[in-house]
Order: sequence, then C-alpha cells, then structure tokens
Amino acid sequence: MTNTVPVLPSYVRDGWWTPADASTPGGTAADAAEPTRAVVVRDASTGEPVARVSADGLDLVAVLDHARDVGQKALGDLTIHERAVLLKRMALELTAHKDALYEVSARTGATARDSAFDVDGGIGVLFTYSSKGRRELPNANLILDGPPEVLSKDGSFLGRHVYTRLTGVAVQVNAFNFPVWGPLEKFAPAFLAGVPTVIKPATPTAYLTEAWVRVLVDAGLLPDGSLQLVSGGARDLLGHLRLGDSVAFTGSADTARRLRGSVGEGVRFNAEADSINASVLGPDGVPGSVEFDAYVRQLVTEMTTKTGQKCTAIRRAIVPEALVDDVVAAVAARLEQKVVVGDPRAEGVTMGPLASLGQRDELYRQVEKLIGAGGRIAAGPADHTTPPEVVRADGTVGPAPDGAFAAPLLLRFDDAEASALHDVEAFGPVAGVVGYRDVGHAGELVVRGGGSLVTSVATSDPAVAAALFGHLCAANGRVLFLDRDDARTSTGHGSPVPHLVHGGPGRAGGGEELGGVRAVHHYMQRTAIQGSPRMLTELTGVWHTGAPVRGSEASGEGTSGAGSAATAVVHPFRESLAELRVGDQVVAGPREVTLADIEHFAAFTGDRFYAHMDETAAAANPFFPGRVAHGYLLVSFAAGLFVDPDPGPVLANYGLENLRFLTPVSPGDAVTVTLTAKQIIPRETDDHGEVRWDAVLRNQDDETVATYDVLTLVAKEWPRG
Amino acid sequence: MTNTVPVLPSYVRDGWWTPADASTPGGTAADAAEPTRAVVVRDASTGEPVARVSADGLDLVAVLDHARDVGQKALGDLTIHERAVLLKRMALELTAHKDALYEVSARTGATARDSAFDVDGGIGVLFTYSSKGRRELPNANLILDGPPEVLSKDGSFLGRHVYTRLTGVAVQVNAFNFPVWGPLEKFAPAFLAGVPTVIKPATPTAYLTEAWVRVLVDAGLLPDGSLQLVSGGARDLLGHLRLGDSVAFTGSADTARRLRGSVGEGVRFNAEADSINASVLGPDGVPGSVEFDAYVRQLVTEMTTKTGQKCTAIRRAIVPEALVDDVVAAVAARLEQKVVVGDPRAEGVTMGPLASLGQRDELYRQVEKLIGAGGRIAAGPADHTTPPEVVRADGTVGPAPDGAFAAPLLLRFDDAEASALHDVEAFGPVAGVVGYRDVGHAGELVVRGGGSLVTSVATSDPAVAAALFGHLCAANGRVLFLDRDDARTSTGHGSPVPHLVHGGPGRAGGGEELGGVRAVHHYMQRTAIQGSPRMLTELTGVWHTGAPVRGSEASGEGTSGAGSAATAVVHPFRESLAELRVGDQVVAGPREVTLADIEHFAAFTGDRFYAHMDETAAAANPFFPGRVAHGYLLVSFAAGLFVDPDPGPVLANYGLENLRFLTPVSPGDAVTVTLTAKQIIPRETDDHGEVRWDAVLRNQDDETVATYDVLTLVAKEWPRG
Repeated sequence: MTNTVPVLPSYVRDGWWTPADASTPGGTAADAAEPTRAVVVRDASTGEPVARVSADGLDLVAVLDHARDVGQKALGDLTIHERAVLLKRMALELTAHKDALYEVSARTGATARDSAFDVDGGIGVLFTYSSKGRRELPNANLILDGPPEVLSKDGSFLGRHVYTRLTGVAVQVNAFNFPVWGPLEKFAPAFLAGVPTVIKPATPTAYLTEAWVRVLVDAGLLPDGSLQLVSGGARDLLGHLRLGDSVAFTGSADTARRLRGSVGEGVRFNAEADSINASVLGPDGVPGSVEFDAYVRQLVTEMTTKTGQKCTAIRRAIVPEALVDDVVAAVAARLEQKVVVGDPRAEGVTMGPLASLGQRDELYRQVEKLIGAGGRIAAGPADHTTPPEVVRADGTVGPAPDGAFAAPLLLRFDDAEASALHDVEAFGPVAGVVGYRDVGHAGELVVRGGGSLVTSVATSDPAVAAALFGHLCAANGRVLFLDRDDARTSTGHGSPVPHLVHGGPGRAGGGEELGGVRAVHHYMQRTAIQGSPRMLTELTGVWHTGAPVRGSEASGEGTSGAGSAATAVVHPFRESLAELRVGDQVVAGPREVTLADIEHFAAFTGDRFYAHMDETAAAANPFFPGRVAHGYLLVSFAAGLFVDPDPGPVLANYGLENLRFLTPVSPGDAVTVTLTAKQIIPRETDDHGEVRWDAVLRNQDDETVATYDVLTLVAKEWPRG
Repeated sequence: MTNTVPVLPSYVRDGWWTPADASTPGGTAADAAEPTRAVVVRDASTGEPVARVSADGLDLVAVLDHARDVGQKALGDLTIHERAVLLKRMALELTAHKDALYEVSARTGATARDSAFDVDGGIGVLFTYSSKGRRELPNANLILDGPPEVLSKDGSFLGRHVYTRLTGVAVQVNAFNFPVWGPLEKFAPAFLAGVPTVIKPATPTAYLTEAWVRVLVDAGLLPDGSLQLVSGGARDLLGHLRLGDSVAFTGSADTARRLRGSVGEGVRFNAEADSINASVLGPDGVPGSVEFDAYVRQLVTEMTTKTGQKCTAIRRAIVPEALVDDVVAAVAARLEQKVVVGDPRAEGVTMGPLASLGQRDELYRQVEKLIGAGGRIAAGPADHTTPPEVVRADGTVGPAPDGAFAAPLLLRFDDAEASALHDVEAFGPVAGVVGYRDVGHAGELVVRGGGSLVTSVATSDPAVAAALFGHLCAANGRVLFLDRDDARTSTGHGSPVPHLVHGGPGRAGGGEELGGVRAVHHYMQRTAIQGSPRMLTELTGVWHTGAPVRGSEASGEGTSGAGSAATAVVHPFRESLAELRVGDQVVAGPREVTLADIEHFAAFTGDRFYAHMDETAAAANPFFPGRVAHGYLLVSFAAGLFVDPDPGPVLANYGLENLRFLTPVSPGDAVTVTLTAKQIIPRETDDHGEVRWDAVLRNQDDETVATYDVLTLVAKEWPRG
C-alpha cells in the first residue's frame, strides 16, 4: 500500500525531478540497478503514509554546479535591494497560500499555534530581511564594513574593509521540526547576499518544505538556480564542497561534529545544535509575583509548543530551592488545565503528536536516562511510556496507537549536579526542575549545559540579573530577561527573532544565524582593500576623500563673505540621480562669522552658553581660545552656503551623521564649506533615492572646523530647467 | 659544548621556570626519569648555539588554570580603557629596550630592516590597539554591537547584541619568523578584551620572544596571569582546552588542519597559514610606467625582506605575457644591484640568512619541486643549492658553511597552469613569474592559490582593477592596489597593518587577526539580550528609551513658548561625571516655531531652500505639507531650550550623531526637547569624559519631529556653585 503514495519530487536545475525508478516498489525491485530506497513518511497523528522520499540517482554534483554557475549568475545580476524586493514578494506569495500550508503542516503534528511558529515565522523572516536589506544595506553588491583607515600621512593610501558574496553554493542541512522556518531563515540571508541555496530538508517532514518551495516556483519568484531542493538522502553532498561554498546545519550536536569534519578546507560550516537550555527563576520571583506567573506560563509554553520539539525549548528549570515545590505545583496545575493532547485537526487540541513514532521512541530512551539519573516524575503519567488518551481528528477521545503521541512530563531532580540533567536532551514535551542555593550557584548550573542557544531569567531585581549576566553571556547565544515590564510583550524564550542572532557557543554548535544583517555577512567574504582614494572610490562606488571630484562653486547669498559666484559646472543639487555621480562637488563660501552673528544667534535660539557669550569664562574653558561660534550656527551657515534654493531634484534633507567639531571658530574667522556626493543609494520602489554628502567646513587658515555627512533624498529624474 | 648554553626559561604562573633537570646533558642522561630533550637553537648566520629550549616537566594544565583563574580575575578588575593604557605603557617600555631587542633579533638572521618589521611592527600593534581601544571602544567591560531592536509595539521589550569576554585562556601557537610581532599582534586584542594569553613561540627563535616578555615582566606591566610563556614543546596543551578557550595559530596549512581537529567542542580556533600569494601587473603597467617600477620594486622587497620568510610574501608574479621578459630582466637587475647577502651584523648587508639550516634544507626541497614542475631559474645561481658567498660579521666575504644562507631565486614558468606554481610554497627568497593572456585569466590564476592572505595589483586603470575585483575579494583576506597615487606611500604587499584584517580564506587558514577592534571581538562572545528597557539599561550601563529617568524641566529662555520654569531636580548639565547617571534628563519647551522665525532664519543663514520659503512649491514636494521649518533651525532652537548657560561641568559639545528628521514642523507648531544622558565614558588620562545624550524633539501632538545623539565633554569633578 505504501508504494502507492507519491514520491516527493526534488527541485533541481530549475525543474522538478523524481527518481527514474519511482514506480518500482521500494526496496523490493530486483531488475533496477539501484532500487529506490524510498523512505515512507507518515502523518504524525494517524500514521497514514503521506509520501515516499528519495533522491536516489540524483546527480548531486550537477546540482552544486548549477548553483555555482547559473545561480551565481542570476543572483549577481541583481543588487541587494532587488533581491530584498523579491524576498518581500515571496513573503506575500506564501502568505496568500498560508491556509494550504497550515493544512500540510497539520500532518506533521503541528497545531495551529505550532504552524504559526513555523509558517508565519518563516514568512516573517522573509519580510524582516526584505525590510532590513533595504534599510540597512546599500543598493549594490558590496557592503562596506567600518570607516576608511588612513594609512599614509598625506592621505594618498587608504584601507577599508568590504564584504563581497561567497562565490559558491550555500548548502542547508535542516532539522525535521521546522520545515518552513528552518530553511527560510537560512535562505533569506544567503539570497540577500547573492548566494544560491541548496536545501536538504529532514526526511520526516520534507513534504512541507516541498509544499512552500512549490508555491515560490509556481509564482516564478526564484531567479534561475537560486534555490534547489533535494528531497531525500544527500549521500556525499558535503564531500563535494570547496572554497566559496558553505554549510548551514541544524540538528544534533553529534551530527554537527561529524559533518563539520567531513567538509573540505575553505568551506564555511555554521552549526546550530540542540542544547540543554535553561530558565532561571530569581529569588524575588515568589508565588504571587508577576515574575513567578510569567516564569510558569513560559515554562509550560516551552514544554508544549511544537510538542517540545524545539532546539530552543527549556530543558532545565533552575529555581530557588525554597520555591521548587511551588514551581512544580504551578506547572503541574497549568499542564493539567491547559494542555489537550490530540490530532491538531481536532477542535480544542493544544498539543499534537511528535513528528514520528521514531522520534517518540527516541524520546522514551532519553527520558529513561533522565529518570535513571534521579529525575522523579512530578507531572505526567507514572509510566512515561504510557501513550496518552488523545482527541482524535473526529473529536472522539481514546488511544491512537499509530500516532506519535506523548504526554508532557515534568521531572524533578534533588541533585542539582546530576550530569544527565545538564547533558541529556529529551526532544519532546519534557523538562527537569532543580533547586539552586544562591544566584552564583544558579549561574554555574546554567553554564553546566556546556553552551546553549538561550537562557531566560525571570526577575525584577537588576542585582540578580547582573550577578548572572557574565555566566549567561559567556554560555549563551541569547539571553531573555522576563520582568513585570515585558512579561506580556516578550516574544518568548523559545522564539528566535530575525533581528537577533540565533545560535550559541559550545554544545549549541558555536554558530550564528539571523541577527539581521549579521547573517548576510556569513555568506560573504570580508576583505581588506588598500589603495589610493581614486581606486577605492572606483571599486566601492563610494567617494573617498582625496579622490577626483567634478566641481562647482557657489557663493553664499546674503552673507558677509567674499565668495566668488563663478560656477564651473552645474551645482550638484541640480542633478537628479540619473546625472549625479559620486565626487560631484560644490565649494561655497567663505563667510565671515562676526561677533554680531554669534550674539544674534544666541538671542534668536536662546542658546546663551557661556563659551559663546563671556570672553573670560570661555577662555577659562580648556577647549576654547575665548568666545567661539555655536556649532549649530556653523552648520546652519554652511547650509546657507551650499543649498541651491529653487525646486530641484534634491527633495529633502532627512538627517545628518557623524558631526564632529574639530577647530573652534572665533569672531572674525571665515568658513568655507565643501560638499561632495559620497554615496548614492537609489530606492527600488520609489522614484527617489538617498544621497549621502561629505561635508567639510574649513576656516581661513584651511584648518578643518567640522566634518559631517548630510543625508538627502534626491529624485531619480528631474527635468533640466 | 652545546649543553653549556643556558636553558631558555618559561614564564608561567607569574614566575620564571626552567626544567628541573636543566643541568642534565640533553638527550644522553640515563639517570633522569624524563631527561631533558632540550633543542639547541643556533645563530642563523654563524651556527653558534644561542640557547637550549625545553618545557619538559612543565605542568601545562596548571598554566591554563592559572590563566583561567588568576588571569581572568586580574584582567576583569580592569576596564577596556585601563587595559588600553597598559598596552601603551608596554609599547613605550619595549621602545626603550629596542636596541637590545634588535641585537637579539640579529641572531635570528634579521637585518635592521627585518627587525623593524618584527620589533617595531610589534610595538606598533600595541600603540594602535591602545589608541583604538580608547577611541573606538567604551571604557567598560562590555561592547555593544549595533543599535537596540524594538521587539514589541509599545517599546517595553527590546533586543540588543553585546560582546562579553570569553571566560577562558587565549593560547597562541606562533611561527618562527616573527618572534616579536607574531605574539604581540595576538596578545594585544586578547588583552584588550580581557582574556589572558599563553604564548607558545616557535622553538628556533623562542629566545627573542623570551627577551621581550622579560622586558614587560621586569617593568611590572603585566597583570597577574595575563601573559604566560611556554618556551619549548607544548605537547598536549591544546587537548586541555574547553569552552571559553581559544587558539590563534600561525604556521603551515597542514599543521593548521591537524591542530584544528585536535581541539574540543566550543574552543575557537583561528588560523593564519602560509599561502601562495600573488602579485598582478596590469596590462597598463608597461616598462617606464610608475606602476611597472612600483611592481618590480615591491616584488624584490617581498622576495628579500625577512629573507622571504613571510607568510604574506609574493610567491607568484602574474604579469601580462608580453611583459614577462621585461619583468624578469628588471627583477634580475634589481636583485643584482640591491641585494647583499650576509650576516646582518655586517655593514651593507641587505638580506640575512634563513632562520636555520633546517629551514634552508626545507627551502631546497620545495624549490626542487618548483623546478621539477617547469620553473626555470631566471635569476639566481644555476644550481639553487649552491650556498652564496656572503659578507661575514667581520666584513670579509666568503662562504659561511654554518650559516643558513640562500641566494634569491626567480623562477620563470612557461605553463601558467602548472599546479606546483599555485600549490608549492618555497619559504624563502623565491618567487615564480608567469604570464597571463588577459585580465580574466589573471583573476583565475590568482584564485588557483586556493585562498590567500594577500594579493596585490599594480595598475592605474580602474577597469582592470574592477575586472579583477570579484576574484580578488573572494580569494583573499587583503588586496592592495598600487598605482601612481600610492606607489610611494603604500605600506606594502607583505605588511599587515593593525588597522586591517590579516588572514585569508581557504589555504590561508580561513581566519582573521587584527583589523582594529574586529580582533577584539574574536576574544569575546556575542550574545543577544532581550528584556525591558529598565533591565537592559541596568545590564549594559547605557540608557534605553523607556527606562526610568531622573528628571528636571527647563523653560526656554527668550522664547515665545509657554514652558514652565519648574525644575524638579538639578539640571543634568550641572552634574559632573561624579554625579551624573544615565537616565538623568531635562525636558524643555515647548517653543512655538513661527513663520517669522523661519523667514528670519533663512535671511540670517542664507538657506532659502524653497521648502521653507514658497508655500506652493513646498506643498508640491512629496514630503512637506507646505512651508516647513529648517531642520537646523529646530536643532538650534532645541539647544536653546536644553542648554544650561553658566560655566559648569559640561565643557563642550563636540559633535552630534544619527540625526533624523521624522515629522516636518509647520509654522505655528511648538517643539519640546527631551535630553537624556545615554552613555558615560570617562577618559582614563583626562579629567573629563564623554557623555552621549539622547535627544528627542516632539511637536504639540507628541509626534516625534527629530531624534539624535548629542556628544559632549564633561568634567569628572565640578564644585557645586
């Protein structure tokens, strides 16, 4: 019977692929040279076969080469912002198909809440990366890292760090528990970086990954070669990787270790492994406090969401010795009241089955170890291998022998040092509770996990948080502090958010994913480039001080300065993005700054700071020779000098950055401003873009008075008037 | 005789240590349980024994534990700036002992120019890290990474990334060629991060490392446990490392691979391995051009500096096919004219011996491979194993059979694809020259090195540079562009600078060192922390929007606003650093902005941009409802509102950052400013510090008009007046 369920296709080389001998009865064929060793995957609640999964006969080297050739080419033809726009369109397309995806997701054992984590979570990653890509990265193919470093006294030799994309393929090896979010949270930053992805989903839930990939393929949103899907065993895939390729692995710590050793030199390997995450209740979190309730609520949520199959789930509840009884009682009560185990398609069910019977058997084995190490069952069936009575899809209640159901289980340990508590992961709705003596002890217990993805702490007392902080930061990729202020708004212990890094040291794999644009960098090579200002400008597209300019001059209007009105070429404020080039420059001034100007500005603005008003007091200040001009007066005068007043392509000044006042301006000094187009960032979905201008104010002795960047919005097109 | 030379001591557990059986004749003792297997190291030019090196019997676990306990404690008692100040004192102390260090350095075969690279280079790293640590990092023990992320709509739940130091020991495994710079460039960022170091120098030149460590020990500049030196074989040292520890390795790619596999889970491993670095001459670099001369000069420098024993040296000269003859002739001529081989202590010598006879034998073996693969000797002795006549220490010229001398050798390859050219490293004064067909071919040849520390390109043509750029960035940690603008000021192909990352992908080890504060991060754990504004403020010491404030109110003076003059507590501008706390706040205003104000400001500054002056034109702008106030007017009025005018602890406003104009202000709107102390950075060596203030301007409808940070200098102490 199982041979009648369809074979799950792979999506490779821009087409769908199934094994040539897909019709051969799995494992029994005698005539096929390589019989399909298709794995039958089943509905987690009912045990009905869903699909057969096999990639036998797939040319994996051709898959990798397709990514490296066609995928690199197609993505390289786009800028970061163009890719970001595509990510948003993908997010919208998946949103439009959400109901269908939820339906498939339910077959994995996911409740609607679980699917929200996986499906909505995955879509959310696409939205966030689309938005962050456009707000925080340039519309280019190169990301600058940090400011230029001046390496010669005369400024003719500079250094700078740039990120450029890796030149190979990003291979993902995913876990079974998040078939949507897992691949998408790896795909989004790689795609943004311009690196093509090959997805290897975990077999038990590969059909859900196939479902969303199909949505994107059908919508025509995937550039050629940018995403491929290998449904089935990937055999020696990683052995074919080389410099420029990368692997992002999610799964067990043991597998991470093994795979890391199997990749070649120069292949980046990022691991995110299950860890024995902890949640600490502060001594102030007594029953009745907001923190106590938040702690208990979060613990039950973490035990039961995704039926505890989250690598971020709380495995260790570390609470004050005096509060162990209270916590156990409250968790037991809440499990009793809130948790309804059953087929997620049935009304009222709040916790589904594990992903497969295999997973349940594995859970039993690990729980056995925990009990053997002193874990006493404080909530849950006396015999943990007793399958619970469940709500079936039709609403009836009773046993479901073909479903992978397991009851939630709270284990209480008297010995806080029991190593199983800190070492053994029961990947299901299971947590251990243990008491700590004092806050220092709690910190040591957290660290006993050997490195975790996340630890949470419920306390309102900053002293408790501070005492734990060093331990927590050293041993975790993420730390969440719950208190009365954020108890309601917290996104939760077990929820990685795309804005923050996901991953942790040591047992957690030592990797990082997400973290906003930080993950984009994982798919890029950081290189220090050195050269002349001209060459660095040419190569980065960003103007560097000392590089050639295309100049104009403007006199200040209504000023007391002696500026010349000669204009060599057009004022850069009269150039649209179609015409403007980095290096286009206006030099304006000089304008004298008089004592009357300073006194007038003080009276007008109300800024009568003594350094501007009182010669004796100003001279006593360590930084001023006597009365000096207001910094804001200088910046305002500079704008008066460089602005071109009539309507034109420069639409608005939306900000200013990195302003530094370097030399004070005394009455009688004269300032000149040099404004140079430094960086141009056209916006994909607007008819304007951002232009960053380098502004330098100098005095009559050519000393630098102030430097800053002026940020403007400039139209893409503007009729020459 | 060799047993009479002293045994080189180790510096461990804050004291000097030599093997207990140091007097036992090396390797021949029968009565000692573990006879000293001391290695005799010799003067590179004369072969005279310099020292015996052995760490036999040293308790390595105790060394590691001392760092983890005593070293972590001592460094943790200091802030980053306090450590930075110590680095500068170390640099000054080493500078004072430079002559003595040069003398020891000469024994390794280093000329004065070579010693400048190693000794001055190492001291320079200390100076740079001292300076960058104080300018670019906070005076604290925690580094913030990126801005806060608002994770709930009401702002009550935030996320942020922090770096905290690793909790273990930083072990260095160094190469023999830079016994000063090598350990110091690893030590400086670890020290700044607060992580204690254990130095394992390479045996052949360990006596020079011992020499500078002794200078620092004698000066009392090393906090307890912050630096230990293991002079001799480190046996299974790396096997004892664990989560929180790290390894920084410099040496061969093979050893890097082996050691990487020997460290445990959670131990960071950074490798910087020898690579087959390339230097490309652009097609425009014809004889007679500045670029041709610069290219040839640099190539000869790289072949001969440190007698070619630099992991960054040029091994492959990749030049246009048509220019191979010219390059070969010019290089041969320059080698002939400029290179005088001999004892570095003799006048006029420009290239010393290799570090040891062992190194020379190894060089011969690798050159043999290159010749076997088609390399023809284009400059140098016909038989490359002929030892050169050299200038001896006493000025006489002749053979020096006990010295590790080798002549410079230029090998010409006809087959650009010969793999030995791209794979085999001859670690000495040897380079291969090969021709390329076109720029694309040149890029491919660079990449054939499998990942390098550095590639340089001599071209004045941006198109050539751009065509190579993708290849170069993907395959290199550093890329240097030589042209007429920087030919004289370039710091050179082979010189890592502390400002830029040193390391490269693939064969180069895949690691990064230096790069300014980037290397400090290698010794720290990045953790995402989530919590309420109050908790994040308490834990980071930096005020977050929404956290508690200590407030005062001020009315604007000379304004048309209706502000109240009531002041709840002291104005924060009246608080010295001794009194000021993050969260101290002043709210000032409102002040109405009238059309007269706008027109007056326009006339005064000369900024008559139409959005301020012309109702119709302004309304046609997509961002403005009609005429609006100048952004600089608003910022100036805000200063008028929040400034406290009389002399006080706030000494100067030295800058402004992250200004964004969010809501336009129309005539008749009224603005209020809220200024809150956000971050306080006391300066170690001044009687003032930096205070960053969070500024928010709001209008009468509580819409945010503008946000920015005001940067001020504030006195540490100020008498209350």
